[in-house]
Amino acid sequence: MKIKVINPNTTTSMTATIAAAARAVASPGTEIIAITSRSGAVSIEGHYDEAMSIVGLVDAINEGPVADAHVIACFGDPGLLAAREIAAGPVLGIAEAAMHAASFVATGFSVVTTLERTRIIAEHLVRNYGMEHHCRRVRATDIPVLELEKPDSNCRKLILEECERAIVEDGSGAIVLGCAGMADLNAWLEDKLGVPVIDGVTAAVKFAEALVSLGLRTSKRGDLAYPLHKPYKGALSAYAPADRNPAPTRKLG
Amino acid sequence: MKIKVINPNTTTSMTATIAAAARAVASPGTEIIAITSRSGAVSIEGHYDEAMSIVGLVDAINEGPVADAHVIACFGDPGLLAAREIAAGPVLGIAEAAMHAASFVATGFSVVTTLERTRIIAEHLVRNYGMEHHCRRVRATDIPVLELEKPDSNCRKLILEECERAIVEDGSGAIVLGCAGMADLNAWLEDKLGVPVIDGVTAAVKFAEALVSLGLRTSKRGDLAYPLHKPYKGALSAYAPADRNPAPTRKLG
Amino acid sequence: MKIKVINPNTTTSMTATIAAAARAVASPGTEIIAITSRSGAVSIEGHYDEAMSIVGLVDAINEGPVADAHVIACFGDPGLLAAREIAAGPVLGIAEAAMHAASFVATGFSVVTTLERTRIIAEHLVRNYGMEHHCRRVRATDIPVLELEKPDSNCRKLILEECERAIVEDGSGAIVLGCAGMADLNAWLEDKLGVPVIDGVTAAVKFAEALVSLGLRTSKRGDLAYPLHKPYKGALSAYAPADRNPAPTRKLG
Amino acid sequence: MKIKVINPNTTTSMTATIAAAARAVASPGTEIIAITSRSGAVSIEGHYDEAMSIVGLVDAINEGPVADAHVIACFGDPGLLAAREIAAGPVLGIAEAAMHAASFVATGFSVVTTLERTRIIAEHLVRNYGMEHHCRRVRATDIPVLELEKPDSNCRKLILEECERAIVEDGSGAIVLGCAGMADLNAWLEDKLGVPVIDGVTAAVKFAEALVSLGLRTSKRGDLAYPLHKPYKGALSAYAPADRNPAPTRKLG
Amino acid sequence: MKIKVINPNTTTSMTATIAAAARAVASPGTEIIAITSRSGAVSIEGHYDEAMSIVGLVDAINEGPVADAHVIACFGDPGLLAAREIAAGPVLGIAEAAMHAASFVATGFSVVTTLERTRIIAEHLVRNYGMEHHCRRVRATDIPVLELEKPDSNCRKLILEECERAIVEDGSGAIVLGCAGMADLNAWLEDKLGVPVIDGVTAAVKFAEALVSLGLRTSKRGDLAYPLHKPYKGALSAYAPADRNPAPTRKLG
Amino acid sequence: MKIKVINPNTTTSMTATIAAAARAVASPGTEIIAITSRSGAVSIEGHYDEAMSIVGLVDAINEGPVADAHVIACFGDPGLLAAREIAAGPVLGIAEAAMHAASFVATGFSVVTTLERTRIIAEHLVRNYGMEHHCRRVRATDIPVLELEKPDSNCRKLILEECERAIVEDGSGAIVLGCAGMADLNAWLEDKLGVPVIDGVTAAVKFAEALVSLGLRTSKRGDLAYPLHKPYKGALSAYAPADRNPAPTRKLG
Repeated sequence: MKIKVINPNTTTSMTATIAAAARAVASPGTEIIAITSRSGAVSIEGHYDEAMSIVGLVDAINEGPVADAHVIACFGDPGLLAAREIAAGPVLGIAEAAMHAASFVATGFSVVTTLERTRIIAEHLVRNYGMEHHCRRVRATDIPVLELEKPDSNCRKLILEECERAIVEDGSGAIVLGCAGMADLNAWLEDKLGVPVIDGVTAAVKFAEALVSLGLRTSKRGDLAYPLHKPYKGALSAYAPADRNPAPTRKLG
Repeated sequence: MKIKVINPNTTTSMTATIAAAARAVASPGTEIIAITSRSGAVSIEGHYDEAMSIVGLVDAINEGPVADAHVIACFGDPGLLAAREIAAGPVLGIAEAAMHAASFVATGFSVVTTLERTRIIAEHLVRNYGMEHHCRRVRATDIPVLELEKPDSNCRKLILEECERAIVEDGSGAIVLGCAGMADLNAWLEDKLGVPVIDGVTAAVKFAEALVSLGLRTSKRGDLAYPLHKPYKGALSAYAPADRNPAPTRKLG
Repeated sequence: MKIKVINPNTTTSMTATIAAAARAVASPGTEIIAITSRSGAVSIEGHYDEAMSIVGLVDAINEGPVADAHVIACFGDPGLLAAREIAAGPVLGIAEAAMHAASFVATGFSVVTTLERTRIIAEHLVRNYGMEHHCRRVRATDIPVLELEKPDSNCRKLILEECERAIVEDGSGAIVLGCAGMADLNAWLEDKLGVPVIDGVTAAVKFAEALVSLGLRTSKRGDLAYPLHKPYKGALSAYAPADRNPAPTRKLG
Repeated sequence: MKIKVINPNTTTSMTATIAAAARAVASPGTEIIAITSRSGAVSIEGHYDEAMSIVGLVDAINEGPVADAHVIACFGDPGLLAAREIAAGPVLGIAEAAMHAASFVATGFSVVTTLERTRIIAEHLVRNYGMEHHCRRVRATDIPVLELEKPDSNCRKLILEECERAIVEDGSGAIVLGCAGMADLNAWLEDKLGVPVIDGVTAAVKFAEALVSLGLRTSKRGDLAYPLHKPYKGALSAYAPADRNPAPTRKLG
Repeated sequence: MKIKVINPNTTTSMTATIAAAARAVASPGTEIIAITSRSGAVSIEGHYDEAMSIVGLVDAINEGPVADAHVIACFGDPGLLAAREIAAGPVLGIAEAAMHAASFVATGFSVVTTLERTRIIAEHLVRNYGMEHHCRRVRATDIPVLELEKPDSNCRKLILEECERAIVEDGSGAIVLGCAGMADLNAWLEDKLGVPVIDGVTAAVKFAEALVSLGLRTSKRGDLAYPLHKPYKGALSAYAPADRNPAPTRKLG
Repeated sequence: MKIKVINPNTTTSMTATIAAAARAVASPGTEIIAITSRSGAVSIEGHYDEAMSIVGLVDAINEGPVADAHVIACFGDPGLLAAREIAAGPVLGIAEAAMHAASFVATGFSVVTTLERTRIIAEHLVRNYGMEHHCRRVRATDIPVLELEKPDSNCRKLILEECERAIVEDGSGAIVLGCAGMADLNAWLEDKLGVPVIDGVTAAVKFAEALVSLGLRTSKRGDLAYPLHKPYKGALSAYAPADRNPAPTRKLG
């Protein structure tokens, strides 16, 4: 099967980290198509950066080969429901996948993320995904996203220390890494901490494989049906939805 | 003061209805700057339409005169937090304003909206705004947004009947109209129903005036601070945030 | 329009502070009728003080000119739903107004109030108003209410320090002042803190003006209908409700 | 022990029903002191009636013999926290007692109450007491409170039918009677329905006995401490709290 | 009446402490039948210990005299709903009883329990019982359960200190003791702390007496009806439910 | 990898259905070890049946080959946290897996289960898993579990009709099948209904594979650590936990 792993951050080096993590866990028959968004912020660190990333996300879904599933590789899960509308197969956000995975292996987990301003975004996701009782705290390290890529930064040390505080102070049994740019840290952290450390990129790839194997696709009944066919104006006129919703063959109700 | 009332739907006739409603309630010193988004869906009826409306919303905020406050005139409140990041003054969504207004005049209200698929969007907003206990039900009429503009449609009748069911079946004491395109219906409905009927456009304009008069502006500490200065790539490179966050004059913590 | 701003604390000097704050933000056409309750506690600092303040609140609503809207100027919002039953126009509590205003300009706020024992009252209001996700913490300074009026007290300093802790420890983007007696502090605090500081008296006055301008009145269908006509006994016999609920002109359901 | 069962409704015949129910379940050593409030509504059927009942409730607590515990015999539990402030021993509301008892014998219950407008009051209590998951629905019969006393009314039939609907439609395993005036109906209903039917008056009396036997009294640390000593003005000056809070003998924190 | 107080921990000395506490508060006409489970962990300190305690709990319910009510004397309330299915009379867990009692005498309480790993179990109960708003925090002392029985341990000192922190840091007005093995500590702690300290064993006994006096039994409609008659296999074949659900005499719905 | 799929119902024909479903979706390298519990109810249909199934579940985990992951194939997920304590690898309940999968492909789903009395058990799981906002309703068909196996029953028709009602009345976009005995129905139903229909057995197998591939194991820090080493008494003495918790190599806090 083909899984598109889309990095909504427009930084190709970050995509390389994400792609390597994805391929390291993919099943033999799975092709990982890693895509760097071609428009928007080099690093997504706020509501505005997120909102402006969705055009590039849509491009990445629409162009190139049709994928069996999609992964949105940014911890804010930008455009998740919009992507589900236009995709036939499952779409997973990495925050969503990581939190669900954590809830399977621990009764409480903490999220360790980058900037303080993205902490609040993660807290909103915790509520959207029904994880209020499982997520004991979202912790910010105040590391800018792209700082994670610099080999000589002290990011690893700061993240490790924050994870240790999470375990002790929050009583958490697992750690969720709150940034796609941390996708290469989980093994190292798990070894240091002795608790499960979950990276959303790899979790999302495996859950996407699982859903495809189960034959599950995004429900096309209700709010996730294909967008209604209609004109779009101006610079986005090319994004007008085609008429994809089939005429119902069986009338319910 | 200047209030930009932005219609993220790219249909100018709908903007005319919205502008008329806004001006009818604006205070003498308030200038309503009504703007039709220049890119995106002619009618916003789903997550995808919403997500694709934000570029046009950002354009409308950034261009032309600087406003003291902004109103997002689409009941899904698309891009609300992103808009708050880039605006200095208050930004209000019409769903947000209508629900808060309803909670001031009734202990329980129902939302009456258009399509079934947008019902779920409204339900998500109910939770985001903490209105789970005040909002007794979101009801869809299955009227397409642009149908509201056709004088010979039976929209008014369908909406009135749904409101009546809301009052009787939900035990609601007030009705929130779930679409900017219904901004001219509230007086007529209120007269028929005998309970407060709240249109979000007018509620948002008055609350925006109130916040500006109070000297309240969007907090620039935390997740609503101006977007971090950074490059944007591709078709959206012009949307890269300028460096607007002032150096802190007083260090807290 | 006429807005009655009722101080349920029976201390006239506090009413003077409240009235000055109210008048400073009122629109040109708004008359602020500031009333000191004539019975009950000189300062409301608990459930009992609150409960015993409602007779005076009812007197203030019933006597003198009929107002278009009412503001209950005590942060516990005592008697709010009872007042809504007997008033035709909107009634706003200052805690309610302040919290809603704060939710419009920040994703998270803290309340800074007076005594520890009133902290719990504020926490109950947070839940009643659906603000659990917006209000990050209610903080008590342990300042008695009337101490706020003494010019040589160190109240201002204590409140400022608590606000600073709220911003740093709670990650809050705005401050809600938890006492009507703090109505003259918000500008000074906002200047020191660099985040929105919201006083409920002024917020309530502006929201009351907004609701009246929108033609919104308290719903008279359901629990906020005028009290049922019936005898009252004993010392309160004069408070027996008159027969004000009109015969319904249109039967719903 | 002495338990004051206070009827905040000023109708003595209703108090007779309440007192008979209370005495029928009281332990041999328990003296039931049944008191009709001497001021306020003949029947409490709304927020205003409730708020105006608290002066009479306070009188009933303060006058006559000192009781070991108090029961507030009105399903809205008016003035519960205020009463807890001024009483040393436990104070129980009948709604509170009934809902807690129901949660001990069924995983889901329904409340069957009188007027539609009091349904909303009961719903607020459900939330205050953390019963959202246990209480499946609050149902109103639209029977005025005093109608319950009329022997030739069809109240019993209406209540029975509503209880039957609760069992079938709500899937409830128990019924909570939502009015002190129904205190003589539970045995009859239980016989007809085959599920536990809980009257709050009797439940509150037994729980009050239990708490007194356990030596538990209302916590005087925090918001339920005796009201702070201070002047009261006007008609309520006699209600000014005495200085009852002891100087702390051991400083915590 | 007969109340079986069942200690699911298979340690008879702990049962002696529990029985003494139960008998000290029981009414004259109440016979306390204290039973030590005959199978399972000597001390229940986790999900597995709890799950494995239920066979012994069922034995204790089924064997010997038929009781009017049952108390499960382990703070995790293991097997509570299963026990309610097989018992006719009320069944109370001591965590359940203690939390409900605490909510009657304070607006906020803290639980002070033994091991950190049982803290999470208590937190789950807090949610199951709707006590999220009343329980401010569950605190673990990291004392193993059987350590409580050793006269020369420093358990009392550690528990006292944790209670003091609960009062100061959590702002709690009452303490709930989180282990049946603490049933002899509440009077001593209450004397030291000056706030209500609630032991679940005694609270459960008194509430069980109250329910029996009220004539309330476990609802046999819905999920708490007697288990369906069916074969059980293997080592547990003797536990197959008999056919106890009576044919309904009156059809509802 | 080896995955034990444990049927806590002691009916081997049901296990055959479960095993076939599991093997149909397992990856090439996955060995499904299907086990019928050897003690307890032939069909689990209540709290008591569930509680009594855990001894057999523990046997199935402990005996035979060591598995990399475990699936509990009964929709009530009996003994889930106890199983997580004793297992090193991940343990998934089928209700848990199905609800999480449903939340990935639809914003709202309904559960269609067997008996009315198990409906409440499913509702408790919905809350435990944070699915209150995703699960729109749990619907019972009142089909006994073993009836599902009878080829000439009308079970399929009844289930299909209930699913249709779920889609229309609840507005759900997906169906979760609420019984392991329905593991062979999802393809047929999905074809009829046109929305995703999720069987928990297959979902749990794929998620278990995903977690194992990610290297995730149950957290052994906190409440899911191996049970504390201690004696067990009586018939269950063989179930006493061995001493498996390693001495910590690195002290946190």
